[in-house]
Amino acid sequence: MFKFKIIKKSGQSSLRVGEIETSHGKFKTPAFMPCGTVGVVKTLTPEEVRAAGTEIVLANTYHLYLRPGEKIIQKLGGLHQFMKWDGPILTDSGGFQVFSLGSARHMTHKHVVGRPSPAAAACRSNCLAPAEAPLVKITEDGVEFRSHIDGSRHFFTPEKVIEIQYALGSDIIMPLDYCATYYCSRREVERAVDYTLKWAAISKEKLNRLNRKDKPTLFGIVQGGVFKDLREYCAKELMKMDFAGYAIGGLAVGESKKEMYDIVRHMNEILPSNKPRYLMGVGEPEDLIKAVQLGIDMFDCVLPTRLARHGVAFTKNSKLKTQNSKLQPKTQKLNLIKSIFKSDPKPLDKNCGCYTCQKRFSRAYLHHLLKEGEILGHRLLTIHNLYFIESLLKDIRKSI
Amino acid sequence: MFKFKIIKKSGQSSLRVGEIETSHGKFKTPAFMPCGTVGVVKTLTPEEVRAAGTEIVLANTYHLYLRPGEKIIQKLGGLHQFMKWDGPILTDSGGFQVFSLGSARHMTHKHVVGRPSPAAAACRSNCLAPAEAPLVKITEDGVEFRSHIDGSRHFFTPEKVIEIQYALGSDIIMPLDYCATYYCSRREVERAVDYTLKWAAISKEKLNRLNRKDKPTLFGIVQGGVFKDLREYCAKELMKMDFAGYAIGGLAVGESKKEMYDIVRHMNEILPSNKPRYLMGVGEPEDLIKAVQLGIDMFDCVLPTRLARHGVAFTKNSKLKTQNSKLQPKTQKLNLIKSIFKSDPKPLDKNCGCYTCQKRFSRAYLHHLLKEGEILGHRLLTIHNLYFIESLLKDIRKSI
Repeated sequence: MFKFKIIKKSGQSSLRVGEIETSHGKFKTPAFMPCGTVGVVKTLTPEEVRAAGTEIVLANTYHLYLRPGEKIIQKLGGLHQFMKWDGPILTDSGGFQVFSLGSARHMTHKHVVGRPSPAAAACRSNCLAPAEAPLVKITEDGVEFRSHIDGSRHFFTPEKVIEIQYALGSDIIMPLDYCATYYCSRREVERAVDYTLKWAAISKEKLNRLNRKDKPTLFGIVQGGVFKDLREYCAKELMKMDFAGYAIGGLAVGESKKEMYDIVRHMNEILPSNKPRYLMGVGEPEDLIKAVQLGIDMFDCVLPTRLARHGVAFTKNSKLKTQNSKLQPKTQKLNLIKSIFKSDPKPLDKNCGCYTCQKRFSRAYLHHLLKEGEILGHRLLTIHNLYFIESLLKDIRKSI
Repeated sequence: MFKFKIIKKSGQSSLRVGEIETSHGKFKTPAFMPCGTVGVVKTLTPEEVRAAGTEIVLANTYHLYLRPGEKIIQKLGGLHQFMKWDGPILTDSGGFQVFSLGSARHMTHKHVVGRPSPAAAACRSNCLAPAEAPLVKITEDGVEFRSHIDGSRHFFTPEKVIEIQYALGSDIIMPLDYCATYYCSRREVERAVDYTLKWAAISKEKLNRLNRKDKPTLFGIVQGGVFKDLREYCAKELMKMDFAGYAIGGLAVGESKKEMYDIVRHMNEILPSNKPRYLMGVGEPEDLIKAVQLGIDMFDCVLPTRLARHGVAFTKNSKLKTQNSKLQPKTQKLNLIKSIFKSDPKPLDKNCGCYTCQKRFSRAYLHHLLKEGEILGHRLLTIHNLYFIESLLKDIRKSI
């Protein structure tokens, strides 16, 4: 089941507020999906994820396929039951993770089909390659890769990726795509688009053949790097296949913000406005504010949870206003590990409604927990950061 | 403020149910105090600690003195405010930790005043010595030691230990004691008793001189190893000083269970029955059951929280009954990391009332979280294990 309804539209920008209904309930758009990579939004219980304002979570096909394996999850009643999250779940296709394996984690590995890649910083987030980068082989049929856990060989075809997500029981699923980084040649990006389109068609067919009452909903993924013509071509070909929603992949992988927004703006003109648009892997507060004004409805990013584990908290700096929006004061990041917080009695943000701030845990206590490596420190910051991002989207939805 | 009230007594054994009132509220005895070593019961929020049934927590003077320092905590309003635990807090004296520094973490170090100590297993729990064991020097005046964090030198006198705990704002405080392990010579244990008694007297005097309306309550600590006569002497000398409660220290440090219970039994005959007795560092479920029958009112132990972090959960095995008691079926420990749990859909214990079991997280999910090193796995097991121990004590209190 999948219904997308636009509830309100902004006069000035392409910003729209909507609602998506799935067989596991509704979620409001624009929506932020925290990453529940291996079947858990790191450090949090489902109730805590919900309390942050989250209505849909993302989980990673690549990780869950490798461990515990989709068959075990299916046997245990599906991913919702496994992780006790009763709301909607979107699973990615694993494409990004698999290609990250071939990318330059250590700044020394050669990208499997490109030139030596300085994309390490961009890819590091999901690049799981052990010291010796596992081989990734891409053919028209799919991708061969080695597990980051035990080095075992695996082959992802578009069909297999659909089967895995089907077994997991996700509500929204993604087709295998070829995620070229910013540092790939145009020729390689062309190939990425060709394969992505071919695999999208195969995925759609595969899903149609699957025999289930409540089939998951398949989105298309637009690739094409920073080449507007390739992006346009890819989007239009996908639109011919008529997907329920369209994701913009392969951004935030090394290009400048300007290049990223040029593509998002272009996609806004091309993609059908009655279908949800999902900007993959983007989650900086300022980027969310800009992207929703360019018609983006869905986001996912590891940022709020990862920053928390690194001791960093989002807060509002009311003295700075964002240039492009009066929606929200500019975000600043507090690095709680710094010794200036050693005896700071203030909460992270006295106006914040999250548990951490409402309970008035001091910055000094958070600093102490982080210095001690105490898990509660990571939890309290994760709770705060996720609440911060979800509240930002809530404010955006209210603002029009 | 400190009031100890015995509410019920068992006819057959020395088991008694009581209540202790402090300026931060009451707690029922027999009581289990989870370890909030550095100002947090590992992985848990105060609400989760409370939900497990906990009414009093223990924190460690040694750790908090070194980081963040008692002055910072005092400045921030005291330990209750710092960690947002509004119930009673007991702080230990740091004696055990300091002596552990001199003990054999790596099975190779020479005990500071004893023979080469195989007590590593026993001491490992609190021994913080880095690869090069810091020097611990004991004199009649106190203990000089090096920080496990940065190697800096510190000197604990009985007075200083009182001052630190006073600054922390604990409800129940402990005097500096000399904790000899099982592997120390009788002569050394004699010295340990002498110093412990001397320091107890100094501590009491120091506390009397402190000018505060709501002074913390000081317990005495009985040392004496497995030597009954030394224990008896130590207990009687302490009783002359008239403490509000008596702790039995220096057990569970290498001796056999029989030797341990011989001492506890002997103390039960000697210590005044109208004062609470606190068996330090003991927390195995079977030991709790036995010890309460020998008149013990308070316990602390890292076991439920530490086992959780190692992937181990307490459960009841209803097929096995404990020999000494019908109170409780025998406890078994499930090591959730084992692959036999890989696809086990059952909760840890279907009759358990903790969040983890009530939410019906499967053993398979817990296994998965542990394999992935996910923090939520440690949290869910900590919640369960602490609930298990607190429920055991609740059952004991109800049983008479």
